[in-house]
This record gives sequence, structure tokens and C-alpha cells, in this order.
Amino acid sequence: MADTVTAARRFVELLEDRDWDGWTALMTSDVVYDMPQTKERIHGRSRYLDFNRTYPGAWRLTPKVVIADDTHGVVWFEWTLDTEAGRESGEAQAFFEFDDAGLITRVTDFWPEPYDPPARPDGLISPMPS
Amino acid sequence: MADTVTAARRFVELLEDRDWDGWTALMTSDVVYDMPQTKERIHGRSRYLDFNRTYPGAWRLTPKVVIADDTHGVVWFEWTLDTEAGRESGEAQAFFEFDDAGLITRVTDFWPEPYDPPARPDGLISPMPS
Repeated sequence: MADTVTAARRFVELLEDRDWDGWTALMTSDVVYDMPQTKERIHGRSRYLDFNRTYPGAWRLTPKVVIADDTHGVVWFEWTLDTEAGRESGEAQAFFEFDDAGLITRVTDFWPEPYDPPARPDGLISPMPS
Repeated sequence: MADTVTAARRFVELLEDRDWDGWTALMTSDVVYDMPQTKERIHGRSRYLDFNRTYPGAWRLTPKVVIADDTHGVVWFEWTLDTEAGRESGEAQAFFEFDDAGLITRVTDFWPEPYDPPARPDGLISPMPS
């Protein structure tokens, strides 16, 4: 199990480092990458590598919470994206499935965006500290 | 560790069942509930209970993936919400922090919404099956 915790954390750290050989070594050749919010899927390590290599902007990823067991893992991470339009930042989650050798067979990302809260009953809510 | 896996799964199942006594028994009295997308925070079990008791609409929650270790856990779940405006559905994640007794001291929810994908390089992306 320690290995999947390490693999999940390294997945984000090696992306951050653009260490493409190290990053692709964590996954099977037929890995599937799902983005449920846009209903997009990428089949296979080589396309997944191209997708990340060509992703526009200067992005940074910092792991915040890593949890894993023998078959599943998650990294909750902070991200920043610098483009000509300025800096965006937020938090996101990557879920993993592992095979028996501890290699990643599936990645599912969620990139939650801010939204305006609906009306809430009085007295329940405080603002989160930034 | 099995206890935190169970506690994380039961958190969602007992919410689904509106078993408020069972649900509140999983957490400390000073539990903190954070919603980073709206920057809202709720302090304490009694306010957190009121928040859920009074949440509008007929909501259903179904755990999909549960992962936990001694101190942290996550449930990735499917949800539906029926209101007068119709049915909405999606997937969300609840992260947990546990104390030494396995009680929940912090919950952080993410409710990622669909968005239009940016332009991607040709040949990389397929639609996700629904």
C-alpha cells in the first residue's frame, strides 16, 4: 500500500517537474484518462503524454492530501495556471486505479470551480479563511 | 484503518438515509465543514446537522469510491437532486480528517460542475461513454 501512496504523490510531483520519463513509468501503456466535467477521455499513455506536454500555460501543481489503498488512490492538489490572461488558481483532485503491480491503469480528474452559494439559513455559515 | 473506511462510507450512507443520530455519531462536536468552491464554513456538529436537515430538495447520494487511512479519507459519490425545477445529477467528493478515535473532525466537499472543454490537439480525445 505504501507503494500506491508513493505512486499517487509522484504522479503529481513528476507532472510538476515535467519529468515525462518518470511520469509515464508510473502507468500502463493502455491507461485511460477521464475528465467527467467535460466528458472527455484519452486512451493510452502516448496520447496522455502528448496531452500534458502540449497543455498551454505555465501550470504548477502542489499535492495537499494523498490517500491510497491497494487498488485506488487520490491526490487533492493545489494548482496555478499562468497565461497571457493572468494567473488562475484553485484546487483539484486526481483519482487513480492501480493494477496488481501498482501501476496506474486509470486516472479521473475533477477541477471544481467557484460558484455563488444559494441562500442558506441564518446563523449557520461563516466565510472560510483564505 | 478499516474503521475510517467504514466511517467514510457510513457518512454518506447515513446522510442518504437521513439517519441523523447515526450520522452525527460519526463526528466530533466541534467538527468543521468546509465548502471551498463557495468559501463557506460551518463550525460545529449542531449547525452542520441543521444545514443538512434543512437542505432543500430531494437529494440522493450513492458512494462510488471510498479510500481512507488512519488520518484522512475520501468518498467519491454520485448525487441526484430533485426540485420543482427538475432533476440535476452529478458526482462529488467529500474529504475527511479523523482524530485518534476515528471520529471525523473535518469535512471538505467538492461539487465539480460540467464545463465546456477548451480546444485540444486533434486525435487525442474521445467522448466519455455516459
